[in-house]
Amino acid sequence: MSEENDLLKAFRNTGYKLGGNGPRTIQVLNKAFSEVDDATESDFYGNGKLIEDFQKKMADFLGKESAVFFPSGVMAQQIALRIWCDRKGIKTVAYHPTCHLEIHENGGLKELHHIRPLLLADKDRLIQLQDITNLKEDISCLLLELPQREIGGQLPDYGELMRISAYCRENGIRLHLDGARLFEVLPYYQKSAAEICGLFDSVYVSFYKGIGGIAGAILAGDTDFTEESKVWKRRYGGDLISLYPYIISSDYYFDRRIGKMAQYYEEAKEFAGFFNSCHGVLTLPEVPVSNMFHVYINVPEEKLRPLLIDFYQSTDIGLTGYLKKTDNGGCSFETNIGDLYEGVSDDKIRSAFRILDQMLLKVI
Amino acid sequence: MSEENDLLKAFRNTGYKLGGNGPRTIQVLNKAFSEVDDATESDFYGNGKLIEDFQKKMADFLGKESAVFFPSGVMAQQIALRIWCDRKGIKTVAYHPTCHLEIHENGGLKELHHIRPLLLADKDRLIQLQDITNLKEDISCLLLELPQREIGGQLPDYGELMRISAYCRENGIRLHLDGARLFEVLPYYQKSAAEICGLFDSVYVSFYKGIGGIAGAILAGDTDFTEESKVWKRRYGGDLISLYPYIISSDYYFDRRIGKMAQYYEEAKEFAGFFNSCHGVLTLPEVPVSNMFHVYINVPEEKLRPLLIDFYQSTDIGLTGYLKKTDNGGCSFETNIGDLYEGVSDDKIRSAFRILDQMLLKVI
Repeated sequence: MSEENDLLKAFRNTGYKLGGNGPRTIQVLNKAFSEVDDATESDFYGNGKLIEDFQKKMADFLGKESAVFFPSGVMAQQIALRIWCDRKGIKTVAYHPTCHLEIHENGGLKELHHIRPLLLADKDRLIQLQDITNLKEDISCLLLELPQREIGGQLPDYGELMRISAYCRENGIRLHLDGARLFEVLPYYQKSAAEICGLFDSVYVSFYKGIGGIAGAILAGDTDFTEESKVWKRRYGGDLISLYPYIISSDYYFDRRIGKMAQYYEEAKEFAGFFNSCHGVLTLPEVPVSNMFHVYINVPEEKLRPLLIDFYQSTDIGLTGYLKKTDNGGCSFETNIGDLYEGVSDDKIRSAFRILDQMLLKVI
Repeated sequence: MSEENDLLKAFRNTGYKLGGNGPRTIQVLNKAFSEVDDATESDFYGNGKLIEDFQKKMADFLGKESAVFFPSGVMAQQIALRIWCDRKGIKTVAYHPTCHLEIHENGGLKELHHIRPLLLADKDRLIQLQDITNLKEDISCLLLELPQREIGGQLPDYGELMRISAYCRENGIRLHLDGARLFEVLPYYQKSAAEICGLFDSVYVSFYKGIGGIAGAILAGDTDFTEESKVWKRRYGGDLISLYPYIISSDYYFDRRIGKMAQYYEEAKEFAGFFNSCHGVLTLPEVPVSNMFHVYINVPEEKLRPLLIDFYQSTDIGLTGYLKKTDNGGCSFETNIGDLYEGVSDDKIRSAFRILDQMLLKVI
């Protein structure tokens, strides 16, 4: 077994994991389905009460005219950008260098649509209004990701967001929201989803991040936009005869967790505080603005890996199952607060972090 | 309520439907999941025991080196054709005029890949070797659908299939199998899936036709082909974090129904015989070669609709919930034999068809 697997194995064996909602086993599905009548009819190629009700519910929540359920955000977002490009007749869009479409989709946007993305800002900071006003060429659409996941889940302040939105409207640039973790930032902004989505022409949200469902996404906007997205959904092979396994579970966990986002946010700030109290550890952002953040530990991987395994075995507390090497010789990992954090006592967490700090002091 | 809904409603209210496996309710999922351990781990972006085991099982069954699970056949088949076009550097393929890619996918192949299809044969007959040898231009791939669904589920004889395969191999044309209903034709051909698939370079099969699962597809071929298909699966947004709702149900119903295909085939021949014994009714094919066939009734829709409603109400037997108008002023519909047919006694069916024939005689 590789050392990497050792860390994951030790992490899995801990009794108290501080991030997430628990293991992705099929009990996630069974729990959601235990409350639904066996005779409930499947959706049928995008039609039927089951899918239409959920789409309506999410359109209302997001304050949009209409919403379409997609198997994945990858599909939903490429389609959104394609529609905006077709409308304007310009196959150029702009987004952050760490945008999901740029780094996690094998170039689908380029390969399937020949859409050229301009990368705004740089990979270590958020897009600002100035990045957009400085653009030397016309674009059809700007994609903003709230929060910007790959830099720890950072957010622009709301005033900046409003200024970007206003500028895009004045200049005929469609604004698309990658809201994979939108629900998770509502407590920080102290805004409703509808208020934030009102700044955007189209919105994607996901049901397996903070909501903790199985998979699935919603794309929302005006009805003419969502109707066009359904044409593309079929072209992509996303218009499945039955999407109900994802719809029922998305709905179930949405209802159960949408009201917990403020709790996750508060717990994330506390959790980050514990990390930042340790020598050689910093979180990004220092104070989280959602349920997520990145942890940077200034210890080389070959030392940190056995240290964490030791920590897991002695405290029964799990922090992460993987480590990423950073450019300056340390390590980083991502964490998200879900249901598990509340199940571990404050004392237990506090004493574990004291132990972690002692262990880190020996290797720094 | 429209007349169309009246027919569907009357059909749904019948106690004995002769086609299909029963209603597409969520009990289809619950039944499949009732036998799986809650602690079973989800697949994870195409990896993990759950998806890998099923892919291996299907690769073995189809006699191919490797197989990839896809959310849909639409996605799987477009990707297969794209790969073969890229390999040869020619963006032209050939298929039947009623090919799924041509009539049910909103032009996805053209819109997403700019692949040009040549339509072989004509919409009322099967593709023959001569249609291919007569081609005036080079193609990368020929797609054959077995059985050809839109013309009632017809099949070429096996010798013709072997000649087409040999010709394609000799001439550098890749042969792709649209095997949406491949399992259903094995009893007619008296061949294993592996023998038939051996004639093709790539193969797609579906799990919600004869198998009666929820959704999902397998694309199989050589490993270099399937590995390339995974790159495209991610580009399409088909590489979901969890596909297990479809995998577990596909596997469950595959095991339960793959051995019943011969029974369905025999029952389909009997069922078609009953239809053909009625005045003004013909089936296509006259003798089915799978579990499916089309029924043509030489009665105008406005007369047939109330007749069928009357028939359903007086016999409690359901035949179809919809009618399609034909060019010559009659009607047609499709039927597929599944688990339901065996649940209705021969006497009941026989006497129902005598009643149907009497009713038809009055309007012809």
